[in-house]
Amino acid sequence: MTKSDALHDRFSSGLDEFLSSYPKDGLYAPIHYLLKIRGKRIRPILALSVCEAEGSTLEEAIPAAVAVELFHNFTLMHDDIMDRAPLRRGQATVHEKFGEDAAILSGDAMFSLALTSLEKVPKNSLIKVLKVFNRTALQVCEGQQLDLEFEDREDVSIDDYLEMIRLKTSVLLACSCAMGAISAGASPDRVELWYRFGEQLGLAFQIQDDLLDTFGNELNTGKKVGGDIVAEKKTFIWLYTKQKGAITSNLSKLNGPEKILKVSAAMIEVGAEMAAQKKMNSYADEAISALSKLGLDSEKRLWFEELVSSVTKRIS
Amino acid sequence: MTKSDALHDRFSSGLDEFLSSYPKDGLYAPIHYLLKIRGKRIRPILALSVCEAEGSTLEEAIPAAVAVELFHNFTLMHDDIMDRAPLRRGQATVHEKFGEDAAILSGDAMFSLALTSLEKVPKNSLIKVLKVFNRTALQVCEGQQLDLEFEDREDVSIDDYLEMIRLKTSVLLACSCAMGAISAGASPDRVELWYRFGEQLGLAFQIQDDLLDTFGNELNTGKKVGGDIVAEKKTFIWLYTKQKGAITSNLSKLNGPEKILKVSAAMIEVGAEMAAQKKMNSYADEAISALSKLGLDSEKRLWFEELVSSVTKRIS
Repeated sequence: MTKSDALHDRFSSGLDEFLSSYPKDGLYAPIHYLLKIRGKRIRPILALSVCEAEGSTLEEAIPAAVAVELFHNFTLMHDDIMDRAPLRRGQATVHEKFGEDAAILSGDAMFSLALTSLEKVPKNSLIKVLKVFNRTALQVCEGQQLDLEFEDREDVSIDDYLEMIRLKTSVLLACSCAMGAISAGASPDRVELWYRFGEQLGLAFQIQDDLLDTFGNELNTGKKVGGDIVAEKKTFIWLYTKQKGAITSNLSKLNGPEKILKVSAAMIEVGAEMAAQKKMNSYADEAISALSKLGLDSEKRLWFEELVSSVTKRIS
Repeated sequence: MTKSDALHDRFSSGLDEFLSSYPKDGLYAPIHYLLKIRGKRIRPILALSVCEAEGSTLEEAIPAAVAVELFHNFTLMHDDIMDRAPLRRGQATVHEKFGEDAAILSGDAMFSLALTSLEKVPKNSLIKVLKVFNRTALQVCEGQQLDLEFEDREDVSIDDYLEMIRLKTSVLLACSCAMGAISAGASPDRVELWYRFGEQLGLAFQIQDDLLDTFGNELNTGKKVGGDIVAEKKTFIWLYTKQKGAITSNLSKLNGPEKILKVSAAMIEVGAEMAAQKKMNSYADEAISALSKLGLDSEKRLWFEELVSSVTKRIS
């Protein structure tokens, strides 16, 4: 069994144990449903592996890992309502399956469950964990707010976009790392380095996500390629291409497959794909740089370096 | 200045100070908007006055008081979406004014702010406060879930209803009292008595709320009388009247003012109003009984006794 498999298994049993105290129906049915459509679980894996790298046992980070996965899924449940998304990881979204009221209310309950899990973090770490978690939760809301606002704004810059994904996505990966380190009793300096590692990794993760939406393979990603283009989502590659004057009003008027084909060709032509990959790699380098300052032994360092590679090279 | 006015003032400045760290626009605009439509603020007043009654200063309970008011308003923001309510305290609801996405997202942010406020509770009280707060937050979601489920159920009993309002409304008043006591460093036994006091007070509060909806005066309550009857909401008085066989299908077919008139007449005729008042008074007695076990000095006890009276005798 690889280390990664072992971490996944340990997390799954921790999550199952936590959830076993709650009913399976009513308010809790949408929660079980969404968690069953397993995602990558990168956030809890980060919390666990960082805690272990800081010399503590996995057990100490289970409460933080469960909390961050519950919180992440809560945001998915609510974001999918706002995005009118019919599918999540290839399955019906909660609001499609259970209705919008259920998605709002069970989402709220899931947020509350995340905090309930935090009650069990090591006693001396509680206030520190709570502070980074609360700050992060609010930032994630701020990121989603910016994402919604950007839909109606024509003046969004690439920097605006990068700040939005930092808030909406990357601070939660940063928080996962920080909570893992805090749970292990790491010093503030080390917690800060882990936070930085997770934040930069999260930025790389999101840019790869955007690249896959346009240039990925549906068979691997499990979602229709080109969704962002059809929705004219202001991603890095869209904004870069627009800046180069290559998103003309003629292109905007197109629909469906033709639009995806022509816009993605334009993106490649102006070098947007290359620029995005370069940007992503620079974030990955920053993550590796934070990692190197932590002075881990080579086996541990290698594992995290491979994690960074798996994010930037992932095809799904 | 009365003691009550002083508590309100101290709470207002605490809330203002807390909110001063956050922007006024974007994600935060709906939060400021809803808080400006001030409610009775009974929950923060309970947290503050209980903390003081336990021999501590008001200051110690400000974080808990701010948290509970923010949490309560977050539930209003989301419940109003689910209830399709156009008005809240006579003003447009958040989803009417800012749209549904904003009501979902700013509600989430408000939940997060409530927890941020809890970071400042006295250090030794933190884990205890967090536990009662988290448990309560989940129960409030469970109560709202039952409330939604009851709409489509024909077999709701009076006991079902009482359990629903206990979860949806009264545990938050109980939590407010408990957090006030914990913030003052009270013993578990005393925290439990305060919890009981708040819980029973909350049950009385909600039954009076239902009575006012049907038998109150629009000029005092600020909302249309008879809304519950038109919606056939399964309140204590509705269920009691139905149990007596006095909600006939002919009555159900009526609309508007005629329905309100005839159903409320039936409610009085079968003694539902009287029975509800009796039930409310029995909860008020239970609250007073918990209070008496706390052995407060007479001045303090009297203040809480008057608070109970003001809830059962309120007209708005």
